[in-house]
Amino acid sequence: MELQDIKSPADIKGLNYQELGEIASQMREAILNRTSQIGGHVGPPLGAVETIIAMHYVFDAPKDKLVYDVSHQAFAHKMITGRVDGYLYREDFPKVSEYTEPRESPEYDLFYAGHTSPAVSLCVGLAKARELKGDKYNVVALVGDGALSGGQAFEGLDAGGALNANFICIVNDNQMAIAENHGGIYKHLQHLRETNGTASDNIFKAFNWDYVYVAEGNNVQKLIETLRSVKDTDKPVVVHVNTQKGEGYRPAEEYRETFHFRKPFDIATGDLLITPQGENATSVLKNFINRSVKKYPTFLAISSATPDDFGLSQKEREMLGKHYIDVGIAEQTAVSVMAGAAREGAKVVYAVVATFLQRAYDQLVEDWAMDPSPALMVVADSGIRGINDQTHLGFWDIPMITSIPDIIYLAPANLEEFDAMLEWGLAQNQYKVAVREPSYSVEHADYEVDKDYSDINKFKVLKEGKDVALIGAGDFLVKARNVADLLKAQGIDATIINPRFVSGVEKDLLLNLVKDHKVIATIEDGSLEGGFGQRVASSLGAEEVKVLNFGLEKKFVDRYHSKELEETYGLLPEQITASILEALK
Amino acid sequence: MELQDIKSPADIKGLNYQELGEIASQMREAILNRTSQIGGHVGPPLGAVETIIAMHYVFDAPKDKLVYDVSHQAFAHKMITGRVDGYLYREDFPKVSEYTEPRESPEYDLFYAGHTSPAVSLCVGLAKARELKGDKYNVVALVGDGALSGGQAFEGLDAGGALNANFICIVNDNQMAIAENHGGIYKHLQHLRETNGTASDNIFKAFNWDYVYVAEGNNVQKLIETLRSVKDTDKPVVVHVNTQKGEGYRPAEEYRETFHFRKPFDIATGDLLITPQGENATSVLKNFINRSVKKYPTFLAISSATPDDFGLSQKEREMLGKHYIDVGIAEQTAVSVMAGAAREGAKVVYAVVATFLQRAYDQLVEDWAMDPSPALMVVADSGIRGINDQTHLGFWDIPMITSIPDIIYLAPANLEEFDAMLEWGLAQNQYKVAVREPSYSVEHADYEVDKDYSDINKFKVLKEGKDVALIGAGDFLVKARNVADLLKAQGIDATIINPRFVSGVEKDLLLNLVKDHKVIATIEDGSLEGGFGQRVASSLGAEEVKVLNFGLEKKFVDRYHSKELEETYGLLPEQITASILEALK
Repeated sequence: MELQDIKSPADIKGLNYQELGEIASQMREAILNRTSQIGGHVGPPLGAVETIIAMHYVFDAPKDKLVYDVSHQAFAHKMITGRVDGYLYREDFPKVSEYTEPRESPEYDLFYAGHTSPAVSLCVGLAKARELKGDKYNVVALVGDGALSGGQAFEGLDAGGALNANFICIVNDNQMAIAENHGGIYKHLQHLRETNGTASDNIFKAFNWDYVYVAEGNNVQKLIETLRSVKDTDKPVVVHVNTQKGEGYRPAEEYRETFHFRKPFDIATGDLLITPQGENATSVLKNFINRSVKKYPTFLAISSATPDDFGLSQKEREMLGKHYIDVGIAEQTAVSVMAGAAREGAKVVYAVVATFLQRAYDQLVEDWAMDPSPALMVVADSGIRGINDQTHLGFWDIPMITSIPDIIYLAPANLEEFDAMLEWGLAQNQYKVAVREPSYSVEHADYEVDKDYSDINKFKVLKEGKDVALIGAGDFLVKARNVADLLKAQGIDATIINPRFVSGVEKDLLLNLVKDHKVIATIEDGSLEGGFGQRVASSLGAEEVKVLNFGLEKKFVDRYHSKELEETYGLLPEQITASILEALK
Repeated sequence: MELQDIKSPADIKGLNYQELGEIASQMREAILNRTSQIGGHVGPPLGAVETIIAMHYVFDAPKDKLVYDVSHQAFAHKMITGRVDGYLYREDFPKVSEYTEPRESPEYDLFYAGHTSPAVSLCVGLAKARELKGDKYNVVALVGDGALSGGQAFEGLDAGGALNANFICIVNDNQMAIAENHGGIYKHLQHLRETNGTASDNIFKAFNWDYVYVAEGNNVQKLIETLRSVKDTDKPVVVHVNTQKGEGYRPAEEYRETFHFRKPFDIATGDLLITPQGENATSVLKNFINRSVKKYPTFLAISSATPDDFGLSQKEREMLGKHYIDVGIAEQTAVSVMAGAAREGAKVVYAVVATFLQRAYDQLVEDWAMDPSPALMVVADSGIRGINDQTHLGFWDIPMITSIPDIIYLAPANLEEFDAMLEWGLAQNQYKVAVREPSYSVEHADYEVDKDYSDINKFKVLKEGKDVALIGAGDFLVKARNVADLLKAQGIDATIINPRFVSGVEKDLLLNLVKDHKVIATIEDGSLEGGFGQRVASSLGAEEVKVLNFGLEKKFVDRYHSKELEETYGLLPEQITASILEALK
């Protein structure tokens, strides 16, 4: 049996253990084939190969429901369910998503589950639907790669433990999140591993689940035997599987953090094909961290399992010592820890990926914005060049954060402004300050960057002109400037404004603009609905001026090309210029 | 010692157990004195009286840090820290918030914590700040009244369990959330209670905490002895306290759900002073539930610990049987269960309080909006007459929900429209539909209410006029009509529009209005920034028409009077009319 001949789960059912092992090897080659060329998650899917083969061998998908969390583990599942070409042939790579994808395979991919921790809760829903329909099948969740530290996973275990019904939760314990794991639960998993599953105070049993331990989590025979023993169970059971992240590929076994997600690399050495060079937003942030820890005795940097946002290697994090805390994949807790430490006067900075911050909306409102807890939050990977997977879009952070009172959201337009905003945000003791890390392009300031941002909502006029005012927020100031150049060629001398603040508007300035401007255009690197530009439009609703809002649509998009999407949304400088000229008519 | 003589914790330190018991009795009377007159949480603070007395007796606040979650338990804490008048004298009631309130007492009230489950995470922050400052004091969280089912509580236990430092987490186990508790964890707590804390698979130990059990959680002597034994501990310890919700007040002991939160009542009987009469939004929802369970074999109603939103009594919930699930205070899981059950074809309705939905923002985006899971969500207690505590405002739901793609948010203007939207939302199989339950006033339709809302973003013109168009969303259609009457008296024949959809706009209709309208006014019962009206303003930014957005400011407000706040925000019909007349000049 060759990997490329597998078209559906039926094709592996007749194989013996040795043949399954050969398939596993071919799957590993295919995973490396794809990820080394276009980048992707490497360690997680490598470690889960045998578990997923065993799942499809023992259970009968799509009748039995298999759910993956986080679904970047599920490459083997995709190969078994008719999508192997997406790992073998370069031209087919783009057809297959990094995550489970209901549109790709409506029957085998039930959910996206691109963020961590929802699977058990989703499966409680499946189990309830099964009960209501009077059906009979197995509901199986594969949970792991750090997904156990997210609060929702525990909620799910809690709700699942109350079901008196078939439910199999396979915990893929690869001893890692994105980076090393943190928190009491991981000590507990370690105890369980060290005692072959017999340690006391078993957390899964506490949640009212049965429990089985598989020490050899990369041994397909052991896995099959265990899963057979729990198949058709009539009560919830956890199968705790001890796997190795990166299994079968030496560099990924050795450098588990670096190979969690990797840009294109040389399979032989594991080295990146292109190494990032020079100053960028991450290096600015990293330097800021290293300066701040010397400056403030109570400095605290917080991560929720993505230390990479700080640009800090494991060694550098260790050097920060007590000034650094990683709470695991637990953004709710990260925000509350920020608020708690700030309440007692610590100088706190929390760096988080825009899409993951979604998990802490309530804590942003109730624990940070409301409490007297001045601190600094850095939001990474936002905007059109953030992450282009549908499940990880950085399009919604401006609407999300700026709908909350008392959080100042700053959008720097270049590295110098980013640095200055970080400095001010941490130094001041009054405001809750979030800073949107630039991600569109590496820009440098050609104007005097302000050091003090306590004049809240004060826009900066970079160039005074007339007829047309271009307000380019953060990342997209560069577009405003490009548009200004194009307008100049048409004889129009446009005003250029860097608003810096996206959480409010300088109404007086806007009203002043009305006097000698016919069109005011806002340009932002985020979703328009609920965003920055609509505030400007509303502020000027009663004025005799045309307001045009340029930005992203409120729409899920997946694996897009940045430039193509900009064109679709009319965001290329030529397009924006044409729209403005049309409005001037 | 009389209760009113207590000005600070020092005043109780010299008392003996009998005197403390007398203070506890007086506190209970004071709690009933306040809540019976103005309403409030009854059972939770009654049950926690002794625990809080013991906390202040053993620990030294404000040096030691005491954090309450949920903070509606903390009435006794407020009485001990100088705010007893807020429970004794009617004129002082409004001065004291239902929750801990840093502005009321900056030194004793560290956080608001009006929502459940953040306390342990907040305390991890306090403990980190203590470490960084080189300080030495006790960090103490009182967690309870259902707060253990929220995922963040587990995240907190996880992060706390990794701290090698003083941290005391008192779990107030009153066997209840708002209603009865659900989930595996509550079975586990029951085992612990039944075995006097010795049951195996102790979840707190699993999270790497030490553990102590107090069977008599309303015995101040036992509590003091136990807290003394853990004071100044150098590692995290959970003190599991078995209390009675409503302790000391017969009706609250007996009817624990009804007395969780109670409107003004007769102390002698426990009966409400005013019983709600007649048809209202909740009764419409309740009737819809009872119809739907007969109509759809796969019907499923989901609650996250607030069954009251459905208007269903415990008995009625039991009658729903398998068609009803309460996942506990776990909104993330509720949304994912909704998505999971809908994915398999169940007919699902989830009812949730607007402010608590904030906790499930990520699940709304990633598990519901994105997945092929058509279902119906009902959002209660939104708008200016929702809940007027700062921590529970229903002002942000429109910006929050409508920033997410592919969720249709409907705002009915009256009970008949509410009913029709519920019917359609559950019957259809294509969209994710959220319906905003009317909360401003009880209105009835005087027009033909549509049954089908699949023409997405189709506004309904109730009356065609000219010069001024009034778009009154949901609750606030009534305001648009009042304004129209006032304009009529000025000789202006205004167009009146019920948009029904607040997640999008009917752009063609808007462009059409421009022809014979000079002013278009939007009126919404929610925060303006990121809301409905700003979309209208943006859509018409390039048109020659004035757009005025009326709604609530992006601002935290607390214990306001609805009419006063409307006046502050210029939302009284006379004010709106005046603004429009001004714009017409």
